[in-house]
Amino acid sequence: MSYKNFPMVPRVVFGRGSFNQLSEIITPKRLNPDAPFIFLVDDVFKNNAWITSRIPLSYDDKIIYISADEEPKTSQVDELVEDIIVTTKERPSGIIGIGGGTLLDLAKAVSIMLTNEGEAKDYQGWDLVKNPAIYHVGIPTISGTGAEVSRTTVLTGPTKKLGINSDFTPFDQVILDSELTKDVPTNQWFYTGMDCFIHCAESLNGTYLNTFSETYGNMAYDLCKEIFLDNTLSDVGSQEKLMMASWHGGMSIVYSQVGIAHAMSYGLSYLLGTKHGIGNCIVFDHLEEYYPKEVALFKTMKSKHNIMLPQGICSNLTDEDFDIMIGVALGLGPLWENALGNNWKKIMTAKKLKELYQKM
Amino acid sequence: MSYKNFPMVPRVVFGRGSFNQLSEIITPKRLNPDAPFIFLVDDVFKNNAWITSRIPLSYDDKIIYISADEEPKTSQVDELVEDIIVTTKERPSGIIGIGGGTLLDLAKAVSIMLTNEGEAKDYQGWDLVKNPAIYHVGIPTISGTGAEVSRTTVLTGPTKKLGINSDFTPFDQVILDSELTKDVPTNQWFYTGMDCFIHCAESLNGTYLNTFSETYGNMAYDLCKEIFLDNTLSDVGSQEKLMMASWHGGMSIVYSQVGIAHAMSYGLSYLLGTKHGIGNCIVFDHLEEYYPKEVALFKTMKSKHNIMLPQGICSNLTDEDFDIMIGVALGLGPLWENALGNNWKKIMTAKKLKELYQKM
Repeated sequence: MSYKNFPMVPRVVFGRGSFNQLSEIITPKRLNPDAPFIFLVDDVFKNNAWITSRIPLSYDDKIIYISADEEPKTSQVDELVEDIIVTTKERPSGIIGIGGGTLLDLAKAVSIMLTNEGEAKDYQGWDLVKNPAIYHVGIPTISGTGAEVSRTTVLTGPTKKLGINSDFTPFDQVILDSELTKDVPTNQWFYTGMDCFIHCAESLNGTYLNTFSETYGNMAYDLCKEIFLDNTLSDVGSQEKLMMASWHGGMSIVYSQVGIAHAMSYGLSYLLGTKHGIGNCIVFDHLEEYYPKEVALFKTMKSKHNIMLPQGICSNLTDEDFDIMIGVALGLGPLWENALGNNWKKIMTAKKLKELYQKM
Repeated sequence: MSYKNFPMVPRVVFGRGSFNQLSEIITPKRLNPDAPFIFLVDDVFKNNAWITSRIPLSYDDKIIYISADEEPKTSQVDELVEDIIVTTKERPSGIIGIGGGTLLDLAKAVSIMLTNEGEAKDYQGWDLVKNPAIYHVGIPTISGTGAEVSRTTVLTGPTKKLGINSDFTPFDQVILDSELTKDVPTNQWFYTGMDCFIHCAESLNGTYLNTFSETYGNMAYDLCKEIFLDNTLSDVGSQEKLMMASWHGGMSIVYSQVGIAHAMSYGLSYLLGTKHGIGNCIVFDHLEEYYPKEVALFKTMKSKHNIMLPQGICSNLTDEDFDIMIGVALGLGPLWENALGNNWKKIMTAKKLKELYQKM
């Protein structure tokens, strides 16, 4: 019997407009004028002065704009780290990620790889990181992934899509300013919000669940229902509550795990590059057999917000393609064990998994 | 507009029996053989081998048993610090508090005063602590106060009962093992659990509330109802859920404040030495005017568990006594402002407060 000693984000600011406090927060963390802050920012904000004008740049600080059109890759992390090492006089004072799950995961991975030798792919797995990361700050601009609070950073590598799970992964500081999420397009809002809903469905129905995770999961689940079903909230109220749902949903994974939707979605993402949020939705839509109550609710929410999911994305795949996806998905043992118990290998065979993928 | 950058407990273990992991957790934090760990332990456990045999003692480590019959005092903190300085070869590696709110608050205060000059009373207030505390661990053995997660340590000083509120106050590590709460007597279980319920009532009805605190408060409130009203839980389930309710209730105060019950209870405690949990209950029982829904629920819970609160504790007080209590209570401006808004001084006069106390 040994319970995980979970690292929590040690500092959090919550509040509408709290992004304005960024300078005040990071300034004391500057090591010296040659050690810059590097801001990794979603490139949708590139000409958005409302956000960029408030990023405090001094000395050699710089912004690196990054597209979130593709899922983050281990090679991308290695390139960013190389670029930062080459262009800075000293190791940076900190990495600040501003964006959704992709940017937050990149910020976490870059901050780890600046102090750990080798390549990012070497650290995909559990507790492989040896040295503490440099100071890193997460500022979500879309809610749902829980990346702001989790101890993983999920990357697509040469042979697998898997997180760098470690005690050094969580942010040192998170700023939760729901105003930054006000212009998220409806589809994206739905897909990413559903990532949170699906986290809760998987966590609350999982065999790993304990009371700690259950209370967080219930809270996030109820918030998702309030936001996506009840329709009684103001825009600001809805944005604030979804930001907290994402936070609590992430905390719910602490003593639990995600499940079938995430395992299968990782397969889609690895082979087809399907983005995480929409991939989870595509998969979850077909998981009535495993999460009947939650999939029914999901379908109601989808219909309420007129969301049309892509159909037939697996219709032209070869047997080899299916084998690749199935290999990635079944490689995620803890997710299946959480979902289906110790005997999961007898329940979720490659054949069964292929039948499920063929519906999508 | 400036939102608080809240320090969270950076490490938490949750699990039945996780107390057994204490040695594994603290061993890496030992500075050297001359720098001991000091365990501050509630003296109800003095001859309880089930707990004490699992406290890992090495080198010069020692247990100090402390009675929780009285609320913790600034003078008591100063004496403990003096004793530790005199009897240890070097500044301790850490302070580990094992007990309820009293022991946890003493552990926090002692760890602060080992690195800050002067007396504990000098630091009663907000953000007066200058130096980081030494490593400190909180292990609750009763649930409800939220002391395991809060950034305060409430002490009775020569002139006031007030917390040392600072970013250095929160524990570096918390161990949440609900098994440690299994032998709490029913009355104490109720009073301390109601501290959590009252935190939520005060936080959720307060003017300071934001969405962050609201979501935590709602979760703790619902858990309290499940535990104290619904009566459908197993003993273990109830203990685990109350431990989480305490945690979330404490988190709810982050961007909020407590209110009228706490302000008045501090007055009772200062003058009469009334313990915090029972004091809150005695006061809350008479606050229908301010928290109608929650006081009604409280009375139902009290009756369901056959709790008889002391009556007439203020019946023999002199006018001078009342003035002392009223002075302590009204000195807690933020609590009244949270409860009643900016104009609280017009609403809660000394006369009104005296009338309330006279009912108790």
